[in-house]
Amino acid sequence: MAGNTIGKMFCVTTFGESHGKALGCIVDGVPPGLKLCSKDLQNDLNRRRPGTSRYTTQRCELDQIEILSGVFNGITTGTSIGLIVNNTDQRSQDYKEIQNLFRPGHADYTYEKKYGIRDYRGGGRASARETVMRVAAGAIAKKYLKNQYGIIIRAYLSAIGHIKCTFESWEEVNKNPFFCPNLRKIEDIQELIKQLKKIGDSIGAEITIVAENIPVGLGEPVFDRIDADLAHALMSINAVKGVEIGDGFLVVNQKGSQNRDEITPYGFKSNHCGGILGGISNGENIVLKAAFKPTSSIRIPGKTIDINNKKSEIIVKGRHDPCVGIRAVPITEAMVAIVVMDHILRFRAQCEKAMKNTELPQILYNVPSRTGCDLLPQTIARLSKFKNIIGIKEATGDLSRINQIKKIVKNNFLLISGDDATALDFIQLGGQGVISVTANIAAKEMATMCSYALQGDFVNARIINERLSLLHEALFIEPNPIPIKWLAKEMGLIKNDTLRLPMTPISSAGQIQLKKALQHAKF
Amino acid sequence: MAGNTIGKMFCVTTFGESHGKALGCIVDGVPPGLKLCSKDLQNDLNRRRPGTSRYTTQRCELDQIEILSGVFNGITTGTSIGLIVNNTDQRSQDYKEIQNLFRPGHADYTYEKKYGIRDYRGGGRASARETVMRVAAGAIAKKYLKNQYGIIIRAYLSAIGHIKCTFESWEEVNKNPFFCPNLRKIEDIQELIKQLKKIGDSIGAEITIVAENIPVGLGEPVFDRIDADLAHALMSINAVKGVEIGDGFLVVNQKGSQNRDEITPYGFKSNHCGGILGGISNGENIVLKAAFKPTSSIRIPGKTIDINNKKSEIIVKGRHDPCVGIRAVPITEAMVAIVVMDHILRFRAQCEKAMKNTELPQILYNVPSRTGCDLLPQTIARLSKFKNIIGIKEATGDLSRINQIKKIVKNNFLLISGDDATALDFIQLGGQGVISVTANIAAKEMATMCSYALQGDFVNARIINERLSLLHEALFIEPNPIPIKWLAKEMGLIKNDTLRLPMTPISSAGQIQLKKALQHAKF
Repeated sequence: MAGNTIGKMFCVTTFGESHGKALGCIVDGVPPGLKLCSKDLQNDLNRRRPGTSRYTTQRCELDQIEILSGVFNGITTGTSIGLIVNNTDQRSQDYKEIQNLFRPGHADYTYEKKYGIRDYRGGGRASARETVMRVAAGAIAKKYLKNQYGIIIRAYLSAIGHIKCTFESWEEVNKNPFFCPNLRKIEDIQELIKQLKKIGDSIGAEITIVAENIPVGLGEPVFDRIDADLAHALMSINAVKGVEIGDGFLVVNQKGSQNRDEITPYGFKSNHCGGILGGISNGENIVLKAAFKPTSSIRIPGKTIDINNKKSEIIVKGRHDPCVGIRAVPITEAMVAIVVMDHILRFRAQCEKAMKNTELPQILYNVPSRTGCDLLPQTIARLSKFKNIIGIKEATGDLSRINQIKKIVKNNFLLISGDDATALDFIQLGGQGVISVTANIAAKEMATMCSYALQGDFVNARIINERLSLLHEALFIEPNPIPIKWLAKEMGLIKNDTLRLPMTPISSAGQIQLKKALQHAKF
Repeated sequence: MAGNTIGKMFCVTTFGESHGKALGCIVDGVPPGLKLCSKDLQNDLNRRRPGTSRYTTQRCELDQIEILSGVFNGITTGTSIGLIVNNTDQRSQDYKEIQNLFRPGHADYTYEKKYGIRDYRGGGRASARETVMRVAAGAIAKKYLKNQYGIIIRAYLSAIGHIKCTFESWEEVNKNPFFCPNLRKIEDIQELIKQLKKIGDSIGAEITIVAENIPVGLGEPVFDRIDADLAHALMSINAVKGVEIGDGFLVVNQKGSQNRDEITPYGFKSNHCGGILGGISNGENIVLKAAFKPTSSIRIPGKTIDINNKKSEIIVKGRHDPCVGIRAVPITEAMVAIVVMDHILRFRAQCEKAMKNTELPQILYNVPSRTGCDLLPQTIARLSKFKNIIGIKEATGDLSRINQIKKIVKNNFLLISGDDATALDFIQLGGQGVISVTANIAAKEMATMCSYALQGDFVNARIINERLSLLHEALFIEPNPIPIKWLAKEMGLIKNDTLRLPMTPISSAGQIQLKKALQHAKF
C-alpha cells in the first residue's frame, strides 16, 4: 500500500526529509557475490550533489554514503542492504517565514490537505533531496548490470529552455556542470542561467536517457511492460511532467510505414520504438526522454494563500536550483537502472531457460593474451557438443593446437585462426580461415590469400602473405587496437582514432615501423 | 512478479489472447454495496468494440460481458469479481502465412525471444484485444467513483496525424466514430483515413484524458505518486509511446513564473500542473495526454526476417485499424479510472480522517421538489452541531419552518431562503438572505431588495419585490432551469441555452408568460 517502495524483485524502499536527520534506503533483492563498497555509490552521488557549481543550489552537502548491512568482506551477501546519508547543511530558518503559506507549484498544499500535517522545512519529504537514495540504490543496480551483462545506462541534458543540446559525445557530458553533450552550447547555457538568476526566475529542461547492451526479453506484459515501468519510475521523480519512449509524441504524425523498424538478419534497421516492442526489450538501445518543469522556488513574487485560506503573496528565498533538470541527470540514470535491474531478475525468475538459450550460432574465442585464460582443447571439445557452438577462433598462435582440437570435436566444427602471422600455416594444417586484424586495412589481400590457401594453392597464397608479413607483425607492436586504429586513420579509412583508457596513443617508433610495413605491403 | 495485475488496493488481473477462447479478468477490492450489472460494463465495451464503423477494424465481436462472481442480487459483495468475454469472430487462417515471420514494429520478435514460444494468431496476448478487460474493470471503477465522489473520467481524440482536434464539447465526442470533440474536423479525418486505406498505411494519434471532481490528496509519494501510477497505466496500453501530465513537454521551455499555478482563496488560478502537485492530486482536473504510434499492421511491404533469421518481406493482411488511437479512447479512460480508484482506496486506508474532514464551510440544501426528501427541522438541528455546517438553504416555501428551525439550531446558524416568491417574507420572519433563481437575470434588484429587508426597510423592499413578483413565479412554470436559461439567452446574458435530457426546450406558452413577467419588472 505504502508508496515508498519501487520494484518487485529488486526492491528499493526509502525514507528521509530534506531537513531531517538523515536519508536512508533499504535495497532488497541484490544478488549475492557482487563486490560492493561505498565508493561504488559515491561517484554517482557526487554527480548529483548540490553545491558543486555556481549553476546549482548553494546548499553544501557532502552526501557521504554509509553501507550499514548486506555487505560482508566487501561482497554482497544477498541480504537487504541498508544505506544512510546524514544531512549536514540544513538551514531551516529560511523556511520559518513561509511555514504557513503554500508555495504555488509546490507540494505544500497537497501534503497539507492529504495528511493534515507537514514538515515544511525545505519541502520535507517532497523535496528532491529525497532522490539521494534513488541515486545510491541505482548505483548498485548499475554496477551489477555492467559487470554481469555489460549494460551501460547514461543520460544527458538534451534541452534547457529554448536551447537544444544536440548529442555529440558522451565524453563531454561529464566534463561540464550541465551534463551537456555538446560543448558549443555551454556558453549559451551559462548565459541563460546568469540571466535567470538576475531576474530570480527558473527554467525547464529535457533529459535523454540511453540504456545500452540491453538483452532481448525484459518486460512483463501486459501491465508491467518495461516501458510502463520506466514511465512510472521517471514520472516518480520530482518535477517530471512528461515521458517519451523512442520517437515519443512524434508518432502522432507518423505513418505506420515510417514508424515501424524493419528487421534484417543483422538486426533492426532503425530504432523508432526506443528498444521496446510490445512492452518487451528488443535488444536495441532503450531511449527515453523526460521533461522537467521549472522549479517554482523563485524570487519573483507570486499570489498564494495561507493555511487559513487567506490571500497572500510569496517570495521564495532559500538556496534553489535555477534549473532542477540539470542535477536530475544521475537521478534519471538511477531510476532506469533500478527498473532494468528489477526486470532482469524477473526475467531470470520466469524465463531462465530462454535467457540462457540463444539460437544464434556462436564461435568460441580463445585469446589468452586478452582474457588471461587459455581455453584448452578438452574444454573446447565439451563446448563443441552444444548445437549452437559452431567453431573457435584460436589466437594462441600455437599451431599444434589445430590437430589436438580437430581430433576431439564434432565433424563440422570450424577452426578459425585468430593470429594473422600464423594464419596461412593454420589453414594449411586444416583450419578454415582467419578472423583478422590485418584485414581491417587489407581486406581484399587477406581474402584473396585465404581463398588461394583454401583451394590448396599455397604458392600464390604465400606470395601475398609475404607482402603482408611485416604488417601482421607491426600491428601488434603495441596493444591491439592501438596500431590498427592509427594506421586506418593514416590511410583515410576512418576519421577518428580516439582511444579509451587504458589504451594510449601510439609511440613515434611504432608509427615508423607501421609505415615501413605498409610500404613493404605495397599499398 | 507476474505482470498481469495492476493496482494495490483495487487489483485488476487479466488473461486472454486475441484468437483464444475467451478474455477474462478478476477485479479484487471492489467495495461492497455497489449496484452492478453487466449493462454497467457493456456501455464502455461497446464504445471500444471493433466493427462498429468503417473507420476501424472489420472484425466483428459483440464483446458480451458476463459477471461470474462477486455480485449477489445485483449488489457487489466485496469478494472478487470474475468477468468473461468469449471470442467469436477469430479468423486465425489470416495469420498462418506469417506464423514464421516477425512483423516489424510488432511484439512477434520480442515474445519469441523472451518466451521461446508464442501464439501468433492475431498477435496473441500482445494484441490490443486484451484491452477489453481493462475497459470492463475500468467501468466498475468509473461507476463507483461517479456514485461515491461525483468523479467523471472522459477522453477524446485530440490529434490524428497532422489534424489537431481542438476541444469544443464533450457532447460531440460520443456522436462521431472518432471520439473527436470538434465536429468541424470530422470530414478531414474521414478523408485522411480514406487515403490511408487506399495506400494501405496507418497513422498515429494523441488522446487527451480529463478526470473531473478529483478530491485533493490522491497519490502516495515518493514512488507511487499518482502521476507516476497514471504514466505507468497509460504506457501499459498497446502502442503508447509518450505520456504527458498538464503542460507536459512544454515545461521544458517555460519559466518558473509562467509554470507555477498561483493560488487564491477560491482555488488555483491556472492548471499547468494538470491537477497534480508533488505527486498528489490538488483538486483541479487531472489532465493527461497519451501518444499512440501508428499500427505496423499495414499492407505496404516491409523488410523482416523469419524465425530462422532468414531475410524476408512482409505484407500484413487481416483486419486492422488504420489508427489504433481511435478505439483507444475508452481504454485510456478505463486505465485512469483504475488508478484513481486504487488511490481513493489507498488514501482512505491511510488517511481516513483527512478524507472525512474538510475545513470548508458547508450549507445544507433542502429542496424536496428536487431530492424527493424533506430535511426536517430535527435533522437540521443535529447536523448544525458539526462545526463546518454553517447554515441551510430552505426551499420548501413553508414559512413556518423558519421559527421551527431557529429554536433548535446553534446561534449563528444561517437561514437562507431557496424560494424567490417567499424570500422577502422569509427574511422578515428572521432569515438572512436568499439563494435566488431570479437573481441570475436581476442580480442588482434582488441584492437591493435583500439589503433593504435586512436593514428593516420593508417598504422599499416590497416595492422592488412587487416588480419582480411575476418573474419569481414565471421562472418556475416549467422545471428550473428551463425558463431561466431561455430568458437569460433572450436577454443576451448567455450565448447558449442547450439543455440536457430530461430537460426539454421551453413551450411557446411559457415564453409568452416570461416576456410578460419581464415587462412587469421594467427591464
